[in-house]
Amino acid sequence: MSEKLSVNAGARHAVERLIAEADALEVAVRRDEATGVTIVDAGIEVRGSTAAGLLIAEICMGGLGHAGLHAAGAETGWPTWIEVRSSQPVTACLASQYAGWSLAASKEETGGKKFFSLGSGPARALAAKEALFTELGYRDRADRGVLVMEVDRFPPPVILNKLLHDCGLAPEGLTVVLTPTTSLAGTAQIVGRVLETALHKAHTLGFDLHRIVEGVASAPLPAPSPDGGVAMGRTNDAILYGGRVHLTVRGEDEAAQALARNLPSTNSPDHGRSFAEIFKDAGYDFYKIDGGLFAPAEVWVSNLDSGRTWHAGRLDVALLRGLWLEEA
Amino acid sequence: MSEKLSVNAGARHAVERLIAEADALEVAVRRDEATGVTIVDAGIEVRGSTAAGLLIAEICMGGLGHAGLHAAGAETGWPTWIEVRSSQPVTACLASQYAGWSLAASKEETGGKKFFSLGSGPARALAAKEALFTELGYRDRADRGVLVMEVDRFPPPVILNKLLHDCGLAPEGLTVVLTPTTSLAGTAQIVGRVLETALHKAHTLGFDLHRIVEGVASAPLPAPSPDGGVAMGRTNDAILYGGRVHLTVRGEDEAAQALARNLPSTNSPDHGRSFAEIFKDAGYDFYKIDGGLFAPAEVWVSNLDSGRTWHAGRLDVALLRGLWLEEA
Amino acid sequence: MSEKLSVNAGARHAVERLIAEADALEVAVRRDEATGVTIVDAGIEVRGSTAAGLLIAEICMGGLGHAGLHAAGAETGWPTWIEVRSSQPVTACLASQYAGWSLAASKEETGGKKFFSLGSGPARALAAKEALFTELGYRDRADRGVLVMEVDRFPPPVILNKLLHDCGLAPEGLTVVLTPTTSLAGTAQIVGRVLETALHKAHTLGFDLHRIVEGVASAPLPAPSPDGGVAMGRTNDAILYGGRVHLTVRGEDEAAQALARNLPSTNSPDHGRSFAEIFKDAGYDFYKIDGGLFAPAEVWVSNLDSGRTWHAGRLDVALLRGLWLEEA
Repeated sequence: MSEKLSVNAGARHAVERLIAEADALEVAVRRDEATGVTIVDAGIEVRGSTAAGLLIAEICMGGLGHAGLHAAGAETGWPTWIEVRSSQPVTACLASQYAGWSLAASKEETGGKKFFSLGSGPARALAAKEALFTELGYRDRADRGVLVMEVDRFPPPVILNKLLHDCGLAPEGLTVVLTPTTSLAGTAQIVGRVLETALHKAHTLGFDLHRIVEGVASAPLPAPSPDGGVAMGRTNDAILYGGRVHLTVRGEDEAAQALARNLPSTNSPDHGRSFAEIFKDAGYDFYKIDGGLFAPAEVWVSNLDSGRTWHAGRLDVALLRGLWLEEA
Repeated sequence: MSEKLSVNAGARHAVERLIAEADALEVAVRRDEATGVTIVDAGIEVRGSTAAGLLIAEICMGGLGHAGLHAAGAETGWPTWIEVRSSQPVTACLASQYAGWSLAASKEETGGKKFFSLGSGPARALAAKEALFTELGYRDRADRGVLVMEVDRFPPPVILNKLLHDCGLAPEGLTVVLTPTTSLAGTAQIVGRVLETALHKAHTLGFDLHRIVEGVASAPLPAPSPDGGVAMGRTNDAILYGGRVHLTVRGEDEAAQALARNLPSTNSPDHGRSFAEIFKDAGYDFYKIDGGLFAPAEVWVSNLDSGRTWHAGRLDVALLRGLWLEEA
Repeated sequence: MSEKLSVNAGARHAVERLIAEADALEVAVRRDEATGVTIVDAGIEVRGSTAAGLLIAEICMGGLGHAGLHAAGAETGWPTWIEVRSSQPVTACLASQYAGWSLAASKEETGGKKFFSLGSGPARALAAKEALFTELGYRDRADRGVLVMEVDRFPPPVILNKLLHDCGLAPEGLTVVLTPTTSLAGTAQIVGRVLETALHKAHTLGFDLHRIVEGVASAPLPAPSPDGGVAMGRTNDAILYGGRVHLTVRGEDEAAQALARNLPSTNSPDHGRSFAEIFKDAGYDFYKIDGGLFAPAEVWVSNLDSGRTWHAGRLDVALLRGLWLEEA
C-alpha cells in the first residue's frame, strides 16, 4: 500500500456525484443543524437505491476500487451479482472500507437513546483511532473526509462532533453517509465488502497484509429484508456462501497456499448453516461466533513472485436459495 | 418515480457524446435544412455501431440507467449479451424509453410517401401526449430534448415541426436520433429495452407502477438482419426467449408473487414459436398477437417490503440458436 | 475504418489518467534525461497493476475500445476474465494495438546491451513504418503520441530519438509505456489483445479487413510468472485456449463462414499443447511455429449483410488449469 494515496481525496468525486445526483439515486442530503456536517441519508427517511449502494461501495474503497452489477444466468442460481475489484486492495478495503471504528454515545451524551455504530470508509484513516492503522502504517491527511455508517437513525451531535474532532475536519469538510442494512443501498454496499471480508480474514490468519496486491471478487446481491436481523443475516450469507475472491499476493508459496486453504468460510465448523441460525445459537453474541466463518466461500490465490495459483472452497448457492427464494 | 428528475437533462451528456464521437461511433450528424433540428443518423446512410446502440439505450433511459455488453461463455449458448439496469426503472423505461408516441404524416402532409414512427426516449415526456403520462403523473420540462425513432428514412419536416410544437422546443433544442432495426445500433438499442418490456407487461397486468423500484435485466444480442421483418423478429425473440429480468417492488406479497408468475413470456399460448411465425399467423397484425407474449422469458421479483423473492419462467436459448445460428 | 479517427487523440484521456493516477495504479512516471520523452514504467522498477494493464489496453486501442474484468463463476474454471470490445476493431486493434513495429538498436548504437522491442499502440500510426498501414490505408496525424513496449528495461536514447523522428513528434509530445510480460500490467494488456489476435489471424487468412465492423472478445487472465518465458507462454495460452471472439463482418456469406471455420486456434496442428512446449519444439524460433495457431480458441462470426452467424472452435480450460493451477 502506498502512503502517497489519499483515500479521502480518492472518494471525493464519488461523494460529489452522490450529492449532485441525489434525486436519481433516491438519497437525501441535509446539513446537520447542530454541527453543520453534511449528512447523506441513503435509506432512513428515503428509499435509497442499488445504484447509490454501488457508489457508496466505491466511496468506502476511497476511489481505489470498482463496484458493478452483473445480470447472471439462471445457471448461477441467482439473478444479480455484485463484482468488486481493486489494485490497491489493502488500502481500499482495510485502511478505508472496513467497518472498524466504534462510535458510541451514552444516553447522557445524546440526551435520548444511546447510539452505536461501526464507522467505515475513508474518514477512518483521518482519525486512525484503530490499532489496525499502526499495523498498516497508513494515515490519510485531507481537508475533506467521508464516513459511512450502517445505521437506521441519524447520528447525534455528540457523535458528529467527535468525528470532526478526531478527523481534524471543519464541519463543511465532513460528509456522513447513512445506510441502513434494511435498505437497497445498505445491502448493496455491505455485500460490496466481499473483497474486504477476504482481506480481514487474511489479517486474522496472520498473513502479511503488505503482500496482498490485487483483489477481484463477486457475491450474489440478495433482496434487503425489512427485518434488521434478517437483512444482516442475508448480507453475511451472501458472502459466506456466495462470495468468491481472487487475491494476488507476494512472498513464499507456502504462505500463499496456506492462505488459499485457510481463507474460505468452508473451513469453519459453523459453515453450512445460515448466519441467522448461527447467530441465534451464539446467543446473539457476535464474539461467540467462530471468527473464521467470516470469509468468502471460494478463494483463489495467485503468487506474483512464483506465478502459482491455488483454489479452495466452494459456493453453496442452494443454501442461499433456500433462504432467499420462495416456492414459485 | 420522482418528479424532480428531468429525463431530457439526464440524457444530455450522452447526447453530447453521441455527437462529439460521431466518427468513432459510425453515426452522422446533420442539421435538418427545413427545420433546423439536429438529426443523428445511426444507421440509414451510415453503418452505425453497437457502441452507438448502447449509448442510445442510455439516452432512451434519460440517463437514469446503464447499458453494457457481456462476452458470455459458450455455456450460455450465445456470445454477446446486453445487460441493463436502473434504480429509476419506471421513469427511465416508461416515462422515457418506451416507444409510445405515434408520429404519423399523410402523403399530403409529407408531399411524398406517408410516414409513421413510434417515438421513444426523453422528448416524449416533454410532449406528454400519451395517456400513460397521466397515469405516471410525470412530465418533464427542459429547453433541450431528444427523441429516438426506429425508422429507415429521415422524418419529413411536418413531423419535425410537430415535435418542436408538442415539446415546446426551439429547433436548436431538439435532437432526433434515427436507428433502423436493421442496423447494429438499432438492434442493440431495441434489445436494450428488455427491462422496459418487463415494465410494460407489468403495466398491462395492472401492477401499480409506482411500486417498482429497481430493475436489472439481460438479453442476448443477435446480429441485425438486413431484412426489416427478420430484424424485428430477432429483437423480439431476443427478449421473449432470451430476456431475463430482476425487478424489486413494494407492496403486498400476493401482488409481487402474481407479478413474477404472470410476467414471463412463457405464460403466453404463443410462447414457443418465433416472433416471425407468430406475426405471420396473425396476418401481420400486431394487435392480433397475444399482448402477454411481449415480456422477458425469465423473471425474478423481490419485494422490498417483505424481503421475499419469487422466480418464474425460463430462457429458451435453443430456440434462438435455431433461428440465429447456421450449421457450422 | 475511418481516416477521420485519430488513435493518438483517442488515447489521450487514458494516457492522462495513467499519469495522473500513477500512485494508485502502481506505475512510475519519469522524463527521460537524454531525450525529454515521458516514460511510464508499468512494471520494471515498480509493481504495476491489473488496473494499469486495463487502462494500457484501452490506450493501445487508441481510445476506440473498452477493456474490463469479469469475476466469473467456478463453472468457467477460472476466476478472472478480461472482456474487450470495439466498434472500430480494425483501427483500434490493427492500426494501433498490434505489436508490429520492430525497434532494434545494436550494441554500438546503445553503447551497452543491444535492444529489441516490438512497439505497439497509437504512435505506430504516426510513423506508419509497417506495410500493414498501406494495406489499411490509414495514417494518423497528431502532435502527441503514445507507444507501448513489452520490455523489461528502459529503452536507450537511440530508440527514443528514432521514435521522435519517425513519429514527427517533439519530445514533450511522446509518451512511452513500458510493460514487462512478467508484470500484472503486462499480462493484463497482452491478454487484452484477444480481439487483436483474431483480427491478425483474419488478415493472415486473407479476409478483407475493411469488412470487419465489430468485435467482442474475452479471455481468462492468468497470474503473471516471474519467468519471462513462462509469462509469455501464459499470455499466449490464455488466448489460444481461453480466448473467445465474436466478430461482425460485411460481404459474402461464404467468406464469413470460412472465416469462422478457419479462424480458431483449434485449426492448427499444434493446438492441444502449451505454447511453452510448442515453442521449445520449434527450437525457440517463433517463425517455425504454425502461424495459424495464433488465434482465439472459439469464434463466432456474424455477417451484417445477411444477418447470418457461424460458430466454430472451443475453449480448452482444462488445459489452462493444468498449466496455471496447483493441486490444492
